[in-house]
Amino acid sequence: MNFTIQNVLIPQAEGYATVDVEIEGDRISGIASHLEVVGTAVDGQNKLLLPGFINAHTHSSEMWHRGLIPMLPLELWLAALYDITPLDPEQVYLSALGTAVETILSGGTSVVDHLVLIPGKELETIAAAVKAYREIGIRAFVAPLVQDESFAAGVPSGGSEKNYAAYFRSTAATLELIETAVKQFHRPDEGVYILVAPTGIQLSTDALFEGCIELSERYDLCRHSHLLETLAQQLLAQEKYGCSAVEHLKEIGYLSHKTSLAHCVWLNDSDIEILAQTQSTVVHNPLSNLRLGSGIAPILKYRQAGVNVTFGCDGASSNDSQDLLEAIKIGSILHNTTDRDYHHWITPLQAVEMASKGGAIGLNLGDELGAIAVGQKADLVLYNLTNLSLLPRTDPIGLLILGRPTQVVHSVWIDGKQIVADGKVKTINVDGLRQELFSRSQWYNNLQFPSVSPMEERYRTVMGLPDKSSV
Amino acid sequence: MNFTIQNVLIPQAEGYATVDVEIEGDRISGIASHLEVVGTAVDGQNKLLLPGFINAHTHSSEMWHRGLIPMLPLELWLAALYDITPLDPEQVYLSALGTAVETILSGGTSVVDHLVLIPGKELETIAAAVKAYREIGIRAFVAPLVQDESFAAGVPSGGSEKNYAAYFRSTAATLELIETAVKQFHRPDEGVYILVAPTGIQLSTDALFEGCIELSERYDLCRHSHLLETLAQQLLAQEKYGCSAVEHLKEIGYLSHKTSLAHCVWLNDSDIEILAQTQSTVVHNPLSNLRLGSGIAPILKYRQAGVNVTFGCDGASSNDSQDLLEAIKIGSILHNTTDRDYHHWITPLQAVEMASKGGAIGLNLGDELGAIAVGQKADLVLYNLTNLSLLPRTDPIGLLILGRPTQVVHSVWIDGKQIVADGKVKTINVDGLRQELFSRSQWYNNLQFPSVSPMEERYRTVMGLPDKSSV
Repeated sequence: MNFTIQNVLIPQAEGYATVDVEIEGDRISGIASHLEVVGTAVDGQNKLLLPGFINAHTHSSEMWHRGLIPMLPLELWLAALYDITPLDPEQVYLSALGTAVETILSGGTSVVDHLVLIPGKELETIAAAVKAYREIGIRAFVAPLVQDESFAAGVPSGGSEKNYAAYFRSTAATLELIETAVKQFHRPDEGVYILVAPTGIQLSTDALFEGCIELSERYDLCRHSHLLETLAQQLLAQEKYGCSAVEHLKEIGYLSHKTSLAHCVWLNDSDIEILAQTQSTVVHNPLSNLRLGSGIAPILKYRQAGVNVTFGCDGASSNDSQDLLEAIKIGSILHNTTDRDYHHWITPLQAVEMASKGGAIGLNLGDELGAIAVGQKADLVLYNLTNLSLLPRTDPIGLLILGRPTQVVHSVWIDGKQIVADGKVKTINVDGLRQELFSRSQWYNNLQFPSVSPMEERYRTVMGLPDKSSV
Repeated sequence: MNFTIQNVLIPQAEGYATVDVEIEGDRISGIASHLEVVGTAVDGQNKLLLPGFINAHTHSSEMWHRGLIPMLPLELWLAALYDITPLDPEQVYLSALGTAVETILSGGTSVVDHLVLIPGKELETIAAAVKAYREIGIRAFVAPLVQDESFAAGVPSGGSEKNYAAYFRSTAATLELIETAVKQFHRPDEGVYILVAPTGIQLSTDALFEGCIELSERYDLCRHSHLLETLAQQLLAQEKYGCSAVEHLKEIGYLSHKTSLAHCVWLNDSDIEILAQTQSTVVHNPLSNLRLGSGIAPILKYRQAGVNVTFGCDGASSNDSQDLLEAIKIGSILHNTTDRDYHHWITPLQAVEMASKGGAIGLNLGDELGAIAVGQKADLVLYNLTNLSLLPRTDPIGLLILGRPTQVVHSVWIDGKQIVADGKVKTINVDGLRQELFSRSQWYNNLQFPSVSPMEERYRTVMGLPDKSSV
């Protein structure tokens, strides 16, 4: 489809310009103050056009348990999540749709889904998520979450004996599974990308990372992983490698310009230097880092060191929303408390660039995605500036990023195709989805999580917290 | 109006109950699993009933400049605000309406408006805000913001000479103004309350505080103030008093069970003990504290010391929204990063209690406002749990507080009167307000703030920041 958005505000290095933006096929083909209309004319008056944001780290199926897990740190929160996790592929399909809807209606056009696989139904899980993303039309980066060590290995031993059960699937079988997924689902030309994505150093052997590197090179895949989300993981890395997790990942060759790393809360200055050297991307998940008490990632230091940073919502059981504008707002202003010099603070315009171009760079698409410029992919979001939550009129991007916009997304195009028109998703039946999510769920009344308590003693000891019974 | 909400979920100490809630006049008159309908029957099925929240600190007229002010710390942000502040009473009326709409549609039923007064039109300013709040029907605590020292006195001198112009109005005239406002507008029985509210120690003499205490006692008024929002204010207090601001306010008698104090970021342990002893209330404004880089208030310490804490949005130029659910979410989870022991973290149910009963206590209405209980004032909010942003169904309060709810407020009653029905404000024309806000404003293109630069040198020196030219 060709179309021309007329008289629309776009940001410039300083301030705004009112322009026409012409799209032919899947690309922006012209930007000027007056263009002859090509294809459909779209009224851009009183609207702001931005490149689509990238929800650069989430776990879509966690939507089934959002709002439910008590206030716990990651390691115990995971135990609680395991208590309630059994899902089926149909649920995965629905939560992928739900994640995509919330992402799109908060300005996102791409999602990186670090997808939790149903044991024994791994390929069906991936197929269900891919089906959902194709139907709604979001640019989808599906990163099957794999590990090859058992859950208990993810908490530092603190010197106690390590004697964990083997993981139920071998490393070789896991790598084979990823390769099958690549062959079946990796279709960059159609907007579906498979990533290699070990969950992180806490539950992965070097053999798994190395196998993923090999697949990444053979099939030109991006790489993804959690990295140093918690202090416990920093301690675990020292136990496991005798060096920092970043040093180890560099040594085995996992870090690269097509590697994006979620969280990155517990890095030291020399780790930061390694991320800059290797051109790795940090995916900042501020809300999840707060909810789980993981800490405040040193985002201003990353930016000063030249490390590319972008934003993710993280899974909806640790946020508990998939609203990108919320993640971008908090992921910007949170850091004003970490550096007294306001010249280093992230401006709203910089936040927009981090969320769009920053995300594209981390997915090795920085040349063609994430900006309003001729030749770029037409992943575009048109915001309605007459919405009450963006009034009175002041600075459009300031209002969008620092405010709390509600229902401000007017139109969305992804790869040149219209996904949202007049505030409504056109490609799927959102009300039908709402009814499915309602009918397949229940309100819990004081639900208990039996797996948490047995892990608490070890966790509290390792983390130097007072004995549970004394609290 | 009498009415009975049937089959509605309400929270209990553990989990939820499904009940009927009966309201006669302005009070809750019955709660039981089945009640005979009194007055209108309201369908509560698939809905959650909570006490209304209190937006316990804001400056309504800042709505005119939200999204506009660059990323600056409070002292320089104020200089920027002064560059763009001239308003007229009609604007004050409209921004008070806008503030009330956003507060109500995010679960609030009361607002504490620390109202910036137009010089020379002080009573007109108050009249305009009161008119707006009466029209929409929100419970309104109007706290005319007063000072008796000039703007420059608010930044520490760092040893340089203090030679500031006198403030344009005398302390006596200011106290007289407040007394006139009390006589004209203070009508607790009609839901309009005047508070005494010096802006804070940074711009107020002891004479102003003492005059306010006297008025507070004579007319039974609550007391409000900013307190130690920034490190600069902590330094200033030491310069001014030779002790902490809290010690000084205690000494002059400003702290009491009817005193609420906004921000409270830079208090030490002995200050916290004083707040507990005096039964003062802390109003936590997390988003503004992040946006201005003021710091992270020690909220978990306050709670452990027995200090009452509630939430505010703060003015919309430093947030830049009036969404209470956002303030409550961030004001809860932010503190998980400040204490490794998750047993101290604020749960969603505790956050609800802080936002409702906590706010009422700070306004000396703890006996009759802020809970779902027989005899309490009927300031009630009914949430629609079938909204997509609250699905799948899990834990209703977890979803509401930890998620990012959008358009979930179904009905609101304040003092027993219905303000919102089926998601729409019934008492004012919201679309007309939207059009007024649009037509009376403009998009700025790269606006400059001339007052900031002259203040930067002193600010940077006092705060130990590198010279501006070297940045």
